Amino acid sequence: MTSKKGENFSEWYSQAVQKGELADYGPIQGTIAFRPYSYEIWEMIQKEFDARIKKLGHKNAYFPLLIPESLLDKEAEHFETFVPEVFWVAYNGNAKLAEKYAVRPTSETIIYYFMSKWIRSWRDLPLLLNQWCNVLRAEIKATKPFIRTSEFLWQEGHTAHATKEEAEKEVFTILSIYKEIVEGLLAVPVIIGKKSEMEKFAGAVYTTTLEAMMPDGKALQCGTSHFLGQNFSKPFEVSFLDKEEKNDFVYTTSWGISTRLLGALIMVHGDDKGLVLPPKVAPIQAVIVPIYYNEQDKKRILGEAEKIKEELGGIRIEMDTREGYTPGWKFNYWELRGVPLRIEIGPKDIENNQVVISKRIDGKKEKVGRSELKQRIKEELENEQEQMFKKARASLDGSITQVRTFDEFKKVLETKMGFIKVSWCASKECEEGIKNETTATCRAIPFGEQVFSDCVYCGKKAIEVAFFAKSY
Amino acid sequence: MTSKKGENFSEWYSQAVQKGELADYGPIQGTIAFRPYSYEIWEMIQKEFDARIKKLGHKNAYFPLLIPESLLDKEAEHFETFVPEVFWVAYNGNAKLAEKYAVRPTSETIIYYFMSKWIRSWRDLPLLLNQWCNVLRAEIKATKPFIRTSEFLWQEGHTAHATKEEAEKEVFTILSIYKEIVEGLLAVPVIIGKKSEMEKFAGAVYTTTLEAMMPDGKALQCGTSHFLGQNFSKPFEVSFLDKEEKNDFVYTTSWGISTRLLGALIMVHGDDKGLVLPPKVAPIQAVIVPIYYNEQDKKRILGEAEKIKEELGGIRIEMDTREGYTPGWKFNYWELRGVPLRIEIGPKDIENNQVVISKRIDGKKEKVGRSELKQRIKEELENEQEQMFKKARASLDGSITQVRTFDEFKKVLETKMGFIKVSWCASKECEEGIKNETTATCRAIPFGEQVFSDCVYCGKKAIEVAFFAKSY
Repeated sequence: MTSKKGENFSEWYSQAVQKGELADYGPIQGTIAFRPYSYEIWEMIQKEFDARIKKLGHKNAYFPLLIPESLLDKEAEHFETFVPEVFWVAYNGNAKLAEKYAVRPTSETIIYYFMSKWIRSWRDLPLLLNQWCNVLRAEIKATKPFIRTSEFLWQEGHTAHATKEEAEKEVFTILSIYKEIVEGLLAVPVIIGKKSEMEKFAGAVYTTTLEAMMPDGKALQCGTSHFLGQNFSKPFEVSFLDKEEKNDFVYTTSWGISTRLLGALIMVHGDDKGLVLPPKVAPIQAVIVPIYYNEQDKKRILGEAEKIKEELGGIRIEMDTREGYTPGWKFNYWELRGVPLRIEIGPKDIENNQVVISKRIDGKKEKVGRSELKQRIKEELENEQEQMFKKARASLDGSITQVRTFDEFKKVLETKMGFIKVSWCASKECEEGIKNETTATCRAIPFGEQVFSDCVYCGKKAIEVAFFAKSY
Repeated sequence: MTSKKGENFSEWYSQAVQKGELADYGPIQGTIAFRPYSYEIWEMIQKEFDARIKKLGHKNAYFPLLIPESLLDKEAEHFETFVPEVFWVAYNGNAKLAEKYAVRPTSETIIYYFMSKWIRSWRDLPLLLNQWCNVLRAEIKATKPFIRTSEFLWQEGHTAHATKEEAEKEVFTILSIYKEIVEGLLAVPVIIGKKSEMEKFAGAVYTTTLEAMMPDGKALQCGTSHFLGQNFSKPFEVSFLDKEEKNDFVYTTSWGISTRLLGALIMVHGDDKGLVLPPKVAPIQAVIVPIYYNEQDKKRILGEAEKIKEELGGIRIEMDTREGYTPGWKFNYWELRGVPLRIEIGPKDIENNQVVISKRIDGKKEKVGRSELKQRIKEELENEQEQMFKKARASLDGSITQVRTFDEFKKVLETKMGFIKVSWCASKECEEGIKNETTATCRAIPFGEQVFSDCVYCGKKAIEVAFFAKSY
């Protein structure tokens, strides 16, 4: 790592991603390869979320990647928003297609095409579907691995319900699962709330969101859960016969988290030595580095290291027995990759029936007796997870500045950035005014917070609290 | 089901897929939605295969969907073969792209682009990568859900090795895992062997294959594992410094199984009542149907059924408590969906402390005491799995006809079809001759079989045995 996180954040991030072997740039702008080390983290996120939604009755399915233009066009607002970033398939072999096909930027339209065939009566509801897939949105400017790429991986949930109440409940159930995953697994704290009218999903009645704060003072949207009402079910004719034999349109929701979460993880926790991974999603939780300087020591130390590895069953362990590298070089190597714990074992350690464990989070070393090693490592992994979340939580809290006037608002943006907490009137004029003057946008309208001043922008009566920030 | 498997196989298949709620047709020709019931089977195949290759050191990764035309074009034979079925992205929003992007028909080219950056020395080898993803190949004619679609899901393994021997060993290791999955999990027996020169993967040194036989006498390729030698590493410049500091190109392999396996499963095992699923991959292994005709019985029977469900923990159980349907209607419903076992419980069964189990495979019923139920169900699920494989194995074996002359060859195609076992000279002329005259192709050249006649086509000296068949 040649860049420091506090000095050149953007370059630091790029190095952390590439030297940490998480991702590499593809031949087409904005595309990346997810290398095994990042993909494994994504698999852990998938496993956890997948188990949770299946428990609640959701089922996975898979829908076509290609969407005919005429289908995407059925919900006008939705179409207009996505068109500028759609990749269009125009040829099939050497033949020009009669109609262009969109490479899915999101799947509402194609999924409603099928839902309209599958839903007939209240007996078919609720229909709780989820899809793990790739989506494409052409990104030209400010592409950044995981954070903003032309292709990313995500899950998109799409559910249909007989009543408005049930659909809205679903939106919030998912939002709370997202919060548990992002905070509990990735140790990335978030603010939750509703999106403003300008920022909500195109076609939604309302959007709920999770917003994290990055160390450079910019917010990162970490997941969204939308209540779509009947906005899609009407144009796509997804209707059902209720118990009284009356026909009605279903109420739908959609929701997604993506590989963008990997970007949040890196930005929030990394340091000048590279990645720092929360133990719960670290592909390698502890690495054993045997230390020896002659052939005689080598054999017995490798033997002991092998024993330790076996004793630590259930913990994700790697042993670095590579020849031709010094212990110091190996220490750097695994620190760069963010492995939470290093276990060093040398000749003296064997004599003393101990090992040295070194903590990635703060570099502190500790001698641990062999008999208590497994217990100590388990504790320490839990401890690191907790410490990382606490530290990030303090950082998020510290990033929030409450302001009453637009002058204060602008001053915050010129200095520390972060979340700016305001009271506002929620009018389109104020939202546009703030955005045009500062490029900051409304990130979230938190639930149940009391208005504490007049509108920060127009000075008229405020109706709600909102968090503004510049964002990725 | 209104079509019979033995009368109109194609229509029977289409009904089994749609009425069994496995898949539905999309708005673009050759695209389908994988409904939860088929996707769940795919997830089980994924889980099993994924665990096996990870144990051997393979790692999952993810590579871009879009491949620049110039990159796809680097290996000429490969490019020529895939071009007619490539979907090309030509626009990004409203802007025409300077270069077209292929929607991946397979990922060798894009993966070698990255491998050439990641591999420097022998220390980086072997590189054992796998990707679970969607691939697209424009299919115009004879599209069929799962079997031949314009988009399908698969895994594609891509590995790089320092030596030819190691790469070839990989090809066969994977082939044998595929065989275990297809035969052991799906109960679909296969013939394994090499592909002929005309049938091998475009760009491969050789291709190994698994071929199953469908009830209509046509072969279905169920997976392939390719030895690519240095055919790709040279144009893509994937080279490494060996231990003697000499530069050499890596030896690569690639291999894949896809959602086509779901098609094999349906075709091989289904019957006139619909699907028949092998217990190991049946999303529902047993369904409990409570039988009652008045409110008084209802309560105690539902109570007992609930108890049975709990007692059967570890088995994938569903209970059908839907109102307004007769038991007979429910029996048909679950038979159509291929659930291996049905557990019926009515008033008399409670009195006798028993249930009736009914077997999907042969419709036989059996009274089972409650105390032995779990054990009996476990045994019966294993038994059905075994019976299904045996039956399919007998059917495959029975489909093979050994011939010595081309007249016999043609007669077989006019009557029973199936695999035609021949000795042949393996010349391009004979392969083309047979294909042009009969549309049958060489499906596999089995390993270690003795030549038993002169070449079936030209009559000259034969060098190997081959299986020919018409195919999907």
